Amino acid sequence: MIQSQEKPDRVLVRVRDLTIQKADEVVWVRARVHTSRAKGKQCFLVLRQQQFNVQALVAVGDHASKQMVKFAANINKESIVDVEGVVRKVNQKIGSCTQQDVELHVQKIYVISLAEPRLPLQLDDAVRPEAEGEEEGRATVNQDTRLDNRVIDLRTSTSQAVFRLQSGICHLFRETLINKGFVEIQTPKIISAASEGGANVFTVSYFKNNAYLAQSPQLYKQMCICADFEKVFCIGPVFRAEDSNTHRHLTEFVGLDIEMAFNYHYHEVMEEIADTMVQIFKGLQERFQTEIQTVNKQFPCEPFKFLEPTLRLEYCEALAMLREAGVEMGDEDDLSTPNEKLLGHLVKEKYDTDFYILDKYPLAVRPFYTMPDPRNPKQSNSYDMFMRGEEILSGAQRIHDPQLLTERALHHGIDLEKIKAYIDSFRFGAPPHAGGGIGLERVTMLFLGLHNVRQTSMFPRDPKRLTP
Amino acid sequence: MIQSQEKPDRVLVRVRDLTIQKADEVVWVRARVHTSRAKGKQCFLVLRQQQFNVQALVAVGDHASKQMVKFAANINKESIVDVEGVVRKVNQKIGSCTQQDVELHVQKIYVISLAEPRLPLQLDDAVRPEAEGEEEGRATVNQDTRLDNRVIDLRTSTSQAVFRLQSGICHLFRETLINKGFVEIQTPKIISAASEGGANVFTVSYFKNNAYLAQSPQLYKQMCICADFEKVFCIGPVFRAEDSNTHRHLTEFVGLDIEMAFNYHYHEVMEEIADTMVQIFKGLQERFQTEIQTVNKQFPCEPFKFLEPTLRLEYCEALAMLREAGVEMGDEDDLSTPNEKLLGHLVKEKYDTDFYILDKYPLAVRPFYTMPDPRNPKQSNSYDMFMRGEEILSGAQRIHDPQLLTERALHHGIDLEKIKAYIDSFRFGAPPHAGGGIGLERVTMLFLGLHNVRQTSMFPRDPKRLTP
Repeated sequence: MIQSQEKPDRVLVRVRDLTIQKADEVVWVRARVHTSRAKGKQCFLVLRQQQFNVQALVAVGDHASKQMVKFAANINKESIVDVEGVVRKVNQKIGSCTQQDVELHVQKIYVISLAEPRLPLQLDDAVRPEAEGEEEGRATVNQDTRLDNRVIDLRTSTSQAVFRLQSGICHLFRETLINKGFVEIQTPKIISAASEGGANVFTVSYFKNNAYLAQSPQLYKQMCICADFEKVFCIGPVFRAEDSNTHRHLTEFVGLDIEMAFNYHYHEVMEEIADTMVQIFKGLQERFQTEIQTVNKQFPCEPFKFLEPTLRLEYCEALAMLREAGVEMGDEDDLSTPNEKLLGHLVKEKYDTDFYILDKYPLAVRPFYTMPDPRNPKQSNSYDMFMRGEEILSGAQRIHDPQLLTERALHHGIDLEKIKAYIDSFRFGAPPHAGGGIGLERVTMLFLGLHNVRQTSMFPRDPKRLTP
Repeated sequence: MIQSQEKPDRVLVRVRDLTIQKADEVVWVRARVHTSRAKGKQCFLVLRQQQFNVQALVAVGDHASKQMVKFAANINKESIVDVEGVVRKVNQKIGSCTQQDVELHVQKIYVISLAEPRLPLQLDDAVRPEAEGEEEGRATVNQDTRLDNRVIDLRTSTSQAVFRLQSGICHLFRETLINKGFVEIQTPKIISAASEGGANVFTVSYFKNNAYLAQSPQLYKQMCICADFEKVFCIGPVFRAEDSNTHRHLTEFVGLDIEMAFNYHYHEVMEEIADTMVQIFKGLQERFQTEIQTVNKQFPCEPFKFLEPTLRLEYCEALAMLREAGVEMGDEDDLSTPNEKLLGHLVKEKYDTDFYILDKYPLAVRPFYTMPDPRNPKQSNSYDMFMRGEEILSGAQRIHDPQLLTERALHHGIDLEKIKAYIDSFRFGAPPHAGGGIGLERVTMLFLGLHNVRQTSMFPRDPKRLTP
């Protein structure tokens, strides 16, 4: 066991650097035993390091005894080993490894951390495409087994790629916004009042009182706008106590939130948000092509398409498209999930884009703080954004006038006492502003064409799952 | 009220861009009325935009009527106005404004958002240094008034600077780690079991059961290491249900967390973390000099000093220094807050640094998952880092062997059933690893030499404060 006894000079070479440039060099490598196969006086190991792997050969001879071959063959899969070996060019490419041109001729092998002999799931099963599993009658791994054994499931090339790309989404989001002059803020998650009417909120015991978990950072983002920060963003957990067991709902997810003061029209903000999304899509396609292709191997999917500038449709246009396709909907009805999906298909067909904005939602289906459209009292200055036919962002111009805000809260039957601090924030001069909140896991899921948001949350939380 | 009725072509000029280069131009500016002073047929306004301000003059003449001067003079402070005016060079510098060489001769003025006439606090009082307030008998603003009216308090030049710098800390932290090959992860905040013995944890009602708020992302960071991500970081809220009412405790704060697999010695990780801190300090001193000086005006303080590489002291050396200074302490006693402070002074005197690492803490004062020192069973492979004599980071090599981990948990009297999932994470091969968690608000506070962590949390939470 490595307990930091010493600091040896030994250099560990990365598996991805084992190429013909290193042929005939003696190297040390630390990696997992992905598979092992004994064959007479030889043992073939596949050594894995993240998404890279290399073949290693332990053969009875000058450097290895019979005992050593036996020892190597008996190391449990997923154990971590330190191996000293010579890099040798191979005559025939090794198709099953990422390092196809070389193998490692092992001289020494030490177990750094031994895995237990029985794995709760096999990594090869966990990356097998569903279709292949069905056709060939080979095992795949169901979602609960994956999630119950997440530490192993996250080791697959698919999971490594998904979460590296997700890290990239956060990075691109911030990079874009910081370049646009935004300031990052940190907003509290424990709040004193359930702000939006009190539904779907988790209660926390707070010393001798009760408190709540924030359903969004929106009120705090808005306070920052009233406090002259002008353009702010934050990335953090948001909590929804909804008993929804669907492919796209979690009780805790990561919100990418934006709020921004504007000069004359909320489209200034809407366009900044849409451009931020476009910069994320471009950045992912430029910097994460390997990850996209890795995920595609298991979950085949069309490349994500988008337009520049982003397509904007008004709600009434969308209604017309849906009605033409046979859907019956009232002017002030909200979109159901199937109708969202259908609309996504219709938009893709007509405009060839997987990303678009739906603007001017009916006022009736939006929260009380949404600014009404001054030209049509049934409409509002609000928008959603969609990826592959599913909503990933909801946003709006917010009411910045305390009197109108009070009227709208009363209209929605909200207890004014509970939102007093919020309304008071607008009493000392508030610039017009708009913003929106993006669900990180949904963006990852839909960009990659995956089908369940639990695939893009490392440790998902839903009404039935709180572990690991 | 701006309700997005139209999209005028008008360009709004930033206050900081009002310089002699723009002399004699007609410009539009949107800003807050910081002060106004009527004087016969003239009204002088100071218009403020974030930390910048400019003098504006409304005078009866070609462009302004008597009524307009009166109207301007009556606009409540902190209201937001749109002003059209001519930029005019002034003969004598305007010492009270950031834009000292020009003033604005107002031709039109519109109120965009009217502030109420009585402000709960005056911005000029809120930026006055304590000493000046005391000497000259002028008002300053106490902390509760500030926090109760945070939206206004955050508008001061000091607050703007503090939180812009804090945004910079997060940015530099991530920039450094992403350059070092780290992956950003998102860890759940709602957890099923209070992992570290159950003290100081907030309880959440989770549908029909109870859940808890995570006191740190550590267990999840470690699972990511076991899942081959190798180097991970996250920024997110952490929750401590401690009834501590001190200058440096919050019940919710932002953790900057790092976890990393290492090859042979945990110092590999400790040095990466220390270097990350150094990159943050350097970046702040390079990019945020204006903000540092702005805060210094109100809260005078010596510039932050650090060494490269970072000074590392062992716990026993620190004990010797304290004992030499007259402190009585046993070998396995933890540092009290006053002794931490004293040690900070001694280290500053001897080594001229405000930042150092204290390594090799007594095993007895560290959590159960801390790796014991193989050469001294009373010591551990753990470290804290200090800024100006206060702890900002706690870290260690973690035990990656399930058997030793089980033994240590039993030794600490921890219910194994409750940490089963945690221990099980190490059963399928776990690399040696170490990490640490940094308190963001403390770093901001101590870098700037402030005296209360509530100054560096936008909306602080403590046992007595849950609002706004």
